[in-house]
Amino acid sequence: MRNSKNFYPDWINAPPKPGTYRSIFKWGDPDGFKHPNRRLYEMMKERFQMTDSDFYERKKEGNKQVFLNQPVKLSGDQINRLFDFVGKENVSFDDYSRVKYANGKTAQEVMDLRNGICKDVPDLVMHPRSKEDVQKIVKYCNKQQIPIYVYGGGSCVNFGFKAVKGGVTLVMNTHMNRVLEFNETNQTITVEPGMLGPDYEKTLNKAPGLFNARRRYTGGHFPQSFEYSSVGGWIVTLGSGQESSYYGDMYDIVLSQEYVTPAGTFKTLDYPGTATGPKVNDIMKGSEGSYGILVSVTCKIFRYMPENRQRFAFIFPSWEDTVDAAREISQGEFGMPSVFRISDPEETDVALKLYGIEGTVIDRIMNYRGYKPMKRCLFIGHSEGEKAFAKSVKKKVKKICSSRGAMYITGYPAKKWEHVRYTDPYMREDFNDFGIMIDTLESAVTWDNLHNLHQGVRSFIKGRSNTICMTHGSHFYPQGTNLYFIFIAKMDDIKEYKEFQEGIIEQIVKHGGSLSHHHGVGRMFAPWMENHLGKVQMDVLRSLKNHFDPNNIMNPGGTLGLDITDDEKRFVR
Amino acid sequence: MRNSKNFYPDWINAPPKPGTYRSIFKWGDPDGFKHPNRRLYEMMKERFQMTDSDFYERKKEGNKQVFLNQPVKLSGDQINRLFDFVGKENVSFDDYSRVKYANGKTAQEVMDLRNGICKDVPDLVMHPRSKEDVQKIVKYCNKQQIPIYVYGGGSCVNFGFKAVKGGVTLVMNTHMNRVLEFNETNQTITVEPGMLGPDYEKTLNKAPGLFNARRRYTGGHFPQSFEYSSVGGWIVTLGSGQESSYYGDMYDIVLSQEYVTPAGTFKTLDYPGTATGPKVNDIMKGSEGSYGILVSVTCKIFRYMPENRQRFAFIFPSWEDTVDAAREISQGEFGMPSVFRISDPEETDVALKLYGIEGTVIDRIMNYRGYKPMKRCLFIGHSEGEKAFAKSVKKKVKKICSSRGAMYITGYPAKKWEHVRYTDPYMREDFNDFGIMIDTLESAVTWDNLHNLHQGVRSFIKGRSNTICMTHGSHFYPQGTNLYFIFIAKMDDIKEYKEFQEGIIEQIVKHGGSLSHHHGVGRMFAPWMENHLGKVQMDVLRSLKNHFDPNNIMNPGGTLGLDITDDEKRFVR
Repeated sequence: MRNSKNFYPDWINAPPKPGTYRSIFKWGDPDGFKHPNRRLYEMMKERFQMTDSDFYERKKEGNKQVFLNQPVKLSGDQINRLFDFVGKENVSFDDYSRVKYANGKTAQEVMDLRNGICKDVPDLVMHPRSKEDVQKIVKYCNKQQIPIYVYGGGSCVNFGFKAVKGGVTLVMNTHMNRVLEFNETNQTITVEPGMLGPDYEKTLNKAPGLFNARRRYTGGHFPQSFEYSSVGGWIVTLGSGQESSYYGDMYDIVLSQEYVTPAGTFKTLDYPGTATGPKVNDIMKGSEGSYGILVSVTCKIFRYMPENRQRFAFIFPSWEDTVDAAREISQGEFGMPSVFRISDPEETDVALKLYGIEGTVIDRIMNYRGYKPMKRCLFIGHSEGEKAFAKSVKKKVKKICSSRGAMYITGYPAKKWEHVRYTDPYMREDFNDFGIMIDTLESAVTWDNLHNLHQGVRSFIKGRSNTICMTHGSHFYPQGTNLYFIFIAKMDDIKEYKEFQEGIIEQIVKHGGSLSHHHGVGRMFAPWMENHLGKVQMDVLRSLKNHFDPNNIMNPGGTLGLDITDDEKRFVR
Repeated sequence: MRNSKNFYPDWINAPPKPGTYRSIFKWGDPDGFKHPNRRLYEMMKERFQMTDSDFYERKKEGNKQVFLNQPVKLSGDQINRLFDFVGKENVSFDDYSRVKYANGKTAQEVMDLRNGICKDVPDLVMHPRSKEDVQKIVKYCNKQQIPIYVYGGGSCVNFGFKAVKGGVTLVMNTHMNRVLEFNETNQTITVEPGMLGPDYEKTLNKAPGLFNARRRYTGGHFPQSFEYSSVGGWIVTLGSGQESSYYGDMYDIVLSQEYVTPAGTFKTLDYPGTATGPKVNDIMKGSEGSYGILVSVTCKIFRYMPENRQRFAFIFPSWEDTVDAAREISQGEFGMPSVFRISDPEETDVALKLYGIEGTVIDRIMNYRGYKPMKRCLFIGHSEGEKAFAKSVKKKVKKICSSRGAMYITGYPAKKWEHVRYTDPYMREDFNDFGIMIDTLESAVTWDNLHNLHQGVRSFIKGRSNTICMTHGSHFYPQGTNLYFIFIAKMDDIKEYKEFQEGIIEQIVKHGGSLSHHHGVGRMFAPWMENHLGKVQMDVLRSLKNHFDPNNIMNPGGTLGLDITDDEKRFVR
């Protein structure tokens, strides 16, 4: 096919070989693939000034077997004790396990693994079977000052799994993935933290068969990482799902939690509301394993009524009009859409290309009616809930959009988006195979600062030639939203990537965005945390750390910026 | 009128004399009165087995001038320094001020004041003018180990103002009651904590005139104490308003807060949502002055659209049906009513009597249709928000109630309730004047435990002969509600009252209710806090206390149970 007009890259279509680096960094199902379609391929060549020849050979595929030249530093005595706690069959210290469970899905980790680089691995990987196992491990490791890291579903994008001080990593999704209680009267479910998204959702959808429930339920939490993230991970990193505008962030969905910490085991209260002082439940949300280990969680659940879903999509004449409409919807007090997503002109442009709308009759109508490329913006959404409610939300959304000059373009784009909502990350491997970097950063912002943040970050990214910057607003609140920046460029040098990415973070902070809306902090944002919170508030988090974990064995080495040195801190002026 | 058929007590109808105990404990406006009407008077005689003669003479009216035999314990040096910080005109240490600002509105405080008893007063009362004043005071008092208490609006019902260690009390509503920023784009307002409810609400209602806003707004927070409570008090005690089912509790309404603590001054982040670790904003909510002093607060505001309000009321055949309907409404995902209030049979009975419905045609229709006295239950409510939304909530509520056998009785009772929503507390003085005690306790509960808690507490209260126990559910969530117990009895002995009240708290705890849903903890519930939270979680709150306030000068002496002895703790088995 080479040199022909119809050249199309030879994307990898086979699962990675077991034991390879690629089998660790590849997204999702080993047998799952989603390749850039021909339109996207053509666009990449155009935008990155590449030619077919750049796609003849794949680079650094990571097909080597994982090899680690790093001895286990625990003593034989310690290892034997740890064996005793969970059974020998639930402990491993082969190179592959140590590397696998120390890596999440950041662009940098993927680049490193492609180069066979992996530091910061645990000495031992353990698969606890129960709260009691975790209690034994924490008690012993605290005495022995052995660091403990926790691995949930594996989709972390902030170096949360890096076992920078060695020690043990606990994998929660192997055994601790069970339902502990289903309570239909209170509309709650209690599960172990290692349960993955699809299992959680299926359990709730099938409640009538499983628990003799009168209805079907949903968890209402659907992050892009849904298929490979865990309920516990959602909570300890403060995740938000794609339908959070209606169902709430995990912060809102969690009713109570049970933790094992060096300072003791406790379960927070599960009243629907109390006025009995600062809520320990809140204190633990977002603690990212640095205060203790989540061993069970009670979540609010919702009625599963997909038959009531109302889809809609609009094209707006400008980004300003789109944002105005989104704000009016968020503050309008008629109920919120669940999926609620506005794309800036560049993202709209790419989306229309990928969906095959560019050049069609619809495109001509849009142009004729004044919705010009690189001005026009796409808004897609759903409403959920009770039937009349969902309908009335859609009706009201249509009215508001229309009053801001938008054209209704049916529910089709929303439906189209639904099909790819979890699969887009699969394309990253294809991009990377040919030296193209794709990454994202996101930031919460109040309405009055939205354009400033958008422009500031965007002009930095666009300041680099041949770089795509797509932005969407998602996760809406009456007071603001989240801006999600996707940047794509031909770039395979780790150092260059790291500098570029840090530059974007700097711009986010400089323009008043929050350091993270739903990706957590981990070790990636840690250097900016003191700048973000101020020293007095950082001291509050540190004092809690010191209370729960005086020996600093819980996820030590940077997480949340709790134990980094002054030299490592980054301040933005 | 004595001995005549038409005897009606000589309720006090004149404002208390300045400087008297009565002027301190009297609820609300000195010129404001609401007397029991004739129907209520007749009912009291019947229920408490009293006769007209019991109402001939008022007892312990508290008309004496406040007299305090308690020297100021601060040194002349200290007093002069404190003068310097706020200006001499903003400091007082007369007996009256010291007693006034050390008392809230508990039944016990009122009884004590009627008897001229008041311990636990501050040495000095100060009226800070600004954050800077507060900073100077906190810094100096921390060095000098002088305790600091805070007084907001004065409606505290848990001994939160008791200056048990002496020192100074800061009165926030004198000067620190201003608007700092109004932000229409974000729908937020930033105010000082001493602003009282009516001022806050009026400011928002009049936003077009005051801030050139395009709309009118509301704070959405309307506790019964609305007229005499402060925005800051609402937050630090985790208050809920009568419309919280729609607008949320203060916990939800606060976006960010600024505190002055011995460990430093800080303002929490005001992003609509973040994933940057445990939220210091949450850690401070409900801290009741024991971590630091709230000096400014940014709240979410809502569109003020009273023209959209939809009122409704229903009579149900039984309490079980009423609770079922309330749960279906709360979990139905069509939006929530704002006022949402279900009365148990005894409260319904009293309400129908007071509203003059007993014995009328409506009463006969109710009886004819099977809604029997002491079985039937009243449900009243509003819906708010956008017009079609409010209408559709009402429509759906009607449908659900009707399916549970309820009869729609128009919006009239809801309107009637609106007129008395803030005035009922005025009757307490009349009751007390004739030796009748009225008090309340409230408790959050999940749906699956509601009947157990209701029956358990109710049977304890009814176990005392001639005692009224009225219960309503208010403040609804998908997972449960709040039960509000009102108990009235002929009782003027403090010791008897205290034992009875503690007995009720014990029953609440024993039956799995939360210690407080929206009245806070203060010193009243402090003994049960460790039982409520468990030692491990109490230790978390204590470690925060120790971080913010290592010298224990912030609201010391029991608040939240942070610094009580093991002997003072109460455990329920």
